[in-house]
Amino acid sequence: MLTANYVGDHTISIREADAVDPGRGQVQIAVAYTGLCGTDLHVVHGTMDARVSTPLIFGHEMSGTIAAIGEGVAGWTVGDAVTVMPLDWDGTCPACLAGNQHICQNLNFIGIDSPGSLQKLWNVSADVLVRLPEGLRLDHAALIEPVAVAVHDVRRSNLAAGEKVVVIGGGPIGVLIATVAREFGGDVAVIELDPHRRAQISELGFTTIDPREVDQVAWVTEWTQNAGADVVFEVSGAAAAVLGATDLAKVRGTIVVVAIHPTPREINLQRVFWRELSILGARVYQRQDFETAAELLEHGAIPADLLITRIVPLTETQAAFADLEAGRAMKILVDVAGQK
Amino acid sequence: MLTANYVGDHTISIREADAVDPGRGQVQIAVAYTGLCGTDLHVVHGTMDARVSTPLIFGHEMSGTIAAIGEGVAGWTVGDAVTVMPLDWDGTCPACLAGNQHICQNLNFIGIDSPGSLQKLWNVSADVLVRLPEGLRLDHAALIEPVAVAVHDVRRSNLAAGEKVVVIGGGPIGVLIATVAREFGGDVAVIELDPHRRAQISELGFTTIDPREVDQVAWVTEWTQNAGADVVFEVSGAAAAVLGATDLAKVRGTIVVVAIHPTPREINLQRVFWRELSILGARVYQRQDFETAAELLEHGAIPADLLITRIVPLTETQAAFADLEAGRAMKILVDVAGQK
Repeated sequence: MLTANYVGDHTISIREADAVDPGRGQVQIAVAYTGLCGTDLHVVHGTMDARVSTPLIFGHEMSGTIAAIGEGVAGWTVGDAVTVMPLDWDGTCPACLAGNQHICQNLNFIGIDSPGSLQKLWNVSADVLVRLPEGLRLDHAALIEPVAVAVHDVRRSNLAAGEKVVVIGGGPIGVLIATVAREFGGDVAVIELDPHRRAQISELGFTTIDPREVDQVAWVTEWTQNAGADVVFEVSGAAAAVLGATDLAKVRGTIVVVAIHPTPREINLQRVFWRELSILGARVYQRQDFETAAELLEHGAIPADLLITRIVPLTETQAAFADLEAGRAMKILVDVAGQK
Repeated sequence: MLTANYVGDHTISIREADAVDPGRGQVQIAVAYTGLCGTDLHVVHGTMDARVSTPLIFGHEMSGTIAAIGEGVAGWTVGDAVTVMPLDWDGTCPACLAGNQHICQNLNFIGIDSPGSLQKLWNVSADVLVRLPEGLRLDHAALIEPVAVAVHDVRRSNLAAGEKVVVIGGGPIGVLIATVAREFGGDVAVIELDPHRRAQISELGFTTIDPREVDQVAWVTEWTQNAGADVVFEVSGAAAAVLGATDLAKVRGTIVVVAIHPTPREINLQRVFWRELSILGARVYQRQDFETAAELLEHGAIPADLLITRIVPLTETQAAFADLEAGRAMKILVDVAGQK
């Protein structure tokens, strides 16, 4: 079978490998689709070289069907449609013992710290399987993982129905957070620089703000009748956005830091103090986020067809990353099953 | 009567003024003691010149007895021992309507935005009075306001009994937070550079850390058996402390920003994300914080005699600020009643 491997030096190598039988407690998944995401971009950029062992078969946003079942696995049948929650925790660290297994202090993130789903037959522990709702298309199901990120972010914010939400950054995760926040009852505005993205987001029914044309603080103040936003999601990764986010939030409002900020960022702590703001980190997801994400996709709540810009064969993975990096695509899926 | 006035240009002027009768809804307090605090220092430094109108009779940490009662005031008697919660909210802004009157968007902070307690006979609205417990000394009662700050900070952190707490900065507010956190059941360590302060804090039974001698991250990691602190209070105001605070907190731990940071500070958002930390602003107090503070002082839980370095006459207010600024005192009270 063909596999897509990060081999260092910004390079993806498509390699032939032999499939192996699933071990005890494992299932073998016939991978249908694997989505490429921002974290994969970081891997290919080399910014995670200190963490990853090369060659690395990466990929962690996926869908597929069970092809074989190893010893000691109960409750699954060959042919079951599944996705994987790619978290493997140790169960013994202080974070796990406190019930925060999803951010285990020794977390193995499958697809980064161990082999991922850019291979036709992928063996994983049965513990990480999530059953797909009947009728959910396999291409759409490859979005469950990023939707689960958005569900986790929104749950972490404690958003209540009727609250005002600002999403800073209208990339794929920003659009998903906006969508999930609306599903949870929020009234959502999205701040985005790119006019093409703004147009797409407007078509989904969201208010959009071009911060180069509009004074975003004045706009939010008026929109919220002088209160400020209940929740602000920082999804842009930009230093200026972090610095400005505190001016958008109401007294006792919440700012959720979703984007990756590789270097420390300046924050207006005077404003954090003055308004008693909460700044919350949110990372990955918990099982209920995966289950909610699958339901949202099944019910058509997620604009899957807008998000999936196109589907490419495994052999075009490197070119797909170039398009993602250039902003020429929201989400690209790799058709893993379709490989020769 | 004599009054202490900030008149701009780093200068305090002691001036003669006539006492006036309390207006409708007001009481007149015979001020006993007024504590000088960090906010007063900011006023005298001139960093709040854009906010204050000069001459300003400042002072807001106080105790006294009711000397006269204006029309329309019920429930108070001449001679009642009182302190003042120096917050005057509008009751109509979004923050007030949401129940956060203490951080009203148009808050009048009495003693900064309107005249304070460095005057022998002070008229205030009866709404801001807080009754003193019987038997609480009036000098100790002047600490209720800063103790209420600490109570508010600890309540805001959601500290639970048995949790590990790190306080960064062992000045008066740091010591009060450490003390209140211990009263709430926390196991507290204080990080402080100054050896004299460390010695005083150790005498109160707290573990102290000299961050120049000890690797504070390694120390906290070992102290918490590899978990990290449940709650970190940033009370130092130092940029380096803010940057380092995120390394001290456990997964899903809380960092409360107590100190004033007049310029934006760098924060390790990667760590905030990675550990799903919460960074919370905490400002002033609510009435229950004042009531808890009064009880703690009455029960002897607060080391009042350690904190009150000395008591000076009103005429020595300017010199007292010089001592505070030079770190030669924890807390100085002005004996307002004792003025000639």
